[in-house]
Amino acid sequence: MEAVMNNVTIEKAKTSKIKDVDFDNLSFGSIYTDHMLVCDYKNGQWQAPKVVPYQPITLDPSSKIFHYGQSIFEGMKAYKDESGSVWLFRPLENFKRLNKSAKRMAMPELPESYFMDGLTTLLQVDSDWIPQSAGSSLYIRPFMFASGNGFHASPADEYKFIIALAPSGSYFSGKVKVLIEKQYSRAANGGVGFAKTGGNYAGQFYPTRLAAEKGYQQVIWTDDNNHEYIEEAGAMNVFVRINDMLLTAPTNDRILDGITRKSILDIAKDEGIKTEIRKVSVKEVVEAAKNGSLKEMFGAGTAAVVSPISAFGYEGVDYDLPELEDSYASLLKKRITDIQYNRAEDKFGWRHEVV
Amino acid sequence: MEAVMNNVTIEKAKTSKIKDVDFDNLSFGSIYTDHMLVCDYKNGQWQAPKVVPYQPITLDPSSKIFHYGQSIFEGMKAYKDESGSVWLFRPLENFKRLNKSAKRMAMPELPESYFMDGLTTLLQVDSDWIPQSAGSSLYIRPFMFASGNGFHASPADEYKFIIALAPSGSYFSGKVKVLIEKQYSRAANGGVGFAKTGGNYAGQFYPTRLAAEKGYQQVIWTDDNNHEYIEEAGAMNVFVRINDMLLTAPTNDRILDGITRKSILDIAKDEGIKTEIRKVSVKEVVEAAKNGSLKEMFGAGTAAVVSPISAFGYEGVDYDLPELEDSYASLLKKRITDIQYNRAEDKFGWRHEVV
Repeated sequence: MEAVMNNVTIEKAKTSKIKDVDFDNLSFGSIYTDHMLVCDYKNGQWQAPKVVPYQPITLDPSSKIFHYGQSIFEGMKAYKDESGSVWLFRPLENFKRLNKSAKRMAMPELPESYFMDGLTTLLQVDSDWIPQSAGSSLYIRPFMFASGNGFHASPADEYKFIIALAPSGSYFSGKVKVLIEKQYSRAANGGVGFAKTGGNYAGQFYPTRLAAEKGYQQVIWTDDNNHEYIEEAGAMNVFVRINDMLLTAPTNDRILDGITRKSILDIAKDEGIKTEIRKVSVKEVVEAAKNGSLKEMFGAGTAAVVSPISAFGYEGVDYDLPELEDSYASLLKKRITDIQYNRAEDKFGWRHEVV
Repeated sequence: MEAVMNNVTIEKAKTSKIKDVDFDNLSFGSIYTDHMLVCDYKNGQWQAPKVVPYQPITLDPSSKIFHYGQSIFEGMKAYKDESGSVWLFRPLENFKRLNKSAKRMAMPELPESYFMDGLTTLLQVDSDWIPQSAGSSLYIRPFMFASGNGFHASPADEYKFIIALAPSGSYFSGKVKVLIEKQYSRAANGGVGFAKTGGNYAGQFYPTRLAAEKGYQQVIWTDDNNHEYIEEAGAMNVFVRINDMLLTAPTNDRILDGITRKSILDIAKDEGIKTEIRKVSVKEVVEAAKNGSLKEMFGAGTAAVVSPISAFGYEGVDYDLPELEDSYASLLKKRITDIQYNRAEDKFGWRHEVV
């Protein structure tokens, strides 16, 4: 049975898996809804997007995704408010970043209507899957990869853009202890660090595993040149509070331009919190930890939302962060999630209703 | 019908595609043989390798290869000599490098016997596909990727290792004009540049496309710090001849440890050619081009073999290289291919017969 909504063809799944899902005990990104959006690029153009039953993808072994790493993705969430209305948070920012990533990875840019109409239609079809319980949300994973074939190191001639949905709980359970990295690096100057491409993640797994063996959940990456400045934490941007000043590194070609990051900066300003976007040296963070002026560190990202850091390790020493009653992290997390779940006024115009 | 050879199970293809192949007009890596080797990693260990008919791969949309870039590969060739015997060139070097890449990308290392017995068996099953004509060979593509599922940025729990075969002609047609890159970079210090991972290739496509628009076939990458030193050319390592001295950059964590590169160095020494493995600055190459002491530049790699560079561009100026009667490139190419095709004595013990 096919239907059409917002110019998007819908092929409905014959049965639903929703009855098998325990919505009170969701992990992150491991259960998928009944449908997905698929859009194919071939003969030099994007074909019309379709909502189809969630299903396996079949590829030739010579498909370039297996060999040359042309893959990009986005992370978004859909929020259901108390009245059952469904909201997205700054979706056009994700769309723009997807195309920025696509350009850097020599992949075709996607038309805005295919992204927005496709996503909206998919969310409407699977709206029963959007959790309403606190701390849960529907994680949205738009991704694009090279599906064209050939063992020649050059861009593919065919691509697939897919949106899949995963009802999810928290990304981190509990507080996060991080290691400030001195040996390995995430990104090169003039490289692809700012793009949300698969290789940026795979490259972090081994150093992150080494850090995990020492008891750290995440690595804070520093510049690959001298490891002097804090860059980002791979799955999130990093904020540092010294006394009452909130600091974060400027984005550049090595650092992801996080949507949560820039929203946090706007909310902080709105709250009258002093912010500075500038290079943050490891040295000043260590000194601030030693002299007691380091009040907070936290990560910010779509999956992680705002994740307080409980301690950081550097050169074999662990530095604990204080537990604050009135932390910037809790204030900013409350403000941003209140906007996302439609529990507060949206003075920035960030909410986007899915109708 | 199943058979077993070298402990590898073989499931034969019902029909062969070989009759459809024009072996006199082979492109590079675009036609695949009747079979492939497949080896699955699950429940914490590699399962026994199997030769099966070349066939599509089916994956869940949440498979980590689409999202987090855990993919590595190798490039090898099989050569058929005049008597019909089949040879590999230093295959254990590829095996060792595959596992070095696997470790850096937090992927499971493969047992040597699975690699060597699997490859040998596959080549025996598809031996009719190995071209005998000059300039052609059977390109071998071993690759491994994350097949496990989940939208969590962490290593997968399942992987696939596959070897596919492609009868191939030359990688480059004609001489190669290169651009020495000043803006973009291939690899970070402490990053994954030495690993043969997909992301290292995808990251080069956009800058290479920009270079192609200006008439260059390849980019020569420089350090991401100040773009002062020549690193590699992405699909090949780079050699520079100044007067009678052959120079190439030392390998490090940014540069692939090329098997052709190190073989060329050994052959050059054997020929009495003076070689130096040291940092090669762009400045000295430009100066040598200006004062006439730059005699040759060439790339070296499995796919490219030895590819003479006809000119390089830097800061908007093109520098042509002379055409030499007795170039090191032709001498070294002849020496290495004579060993590969069993046309000369193998004093280094590099040839490996497939029996």
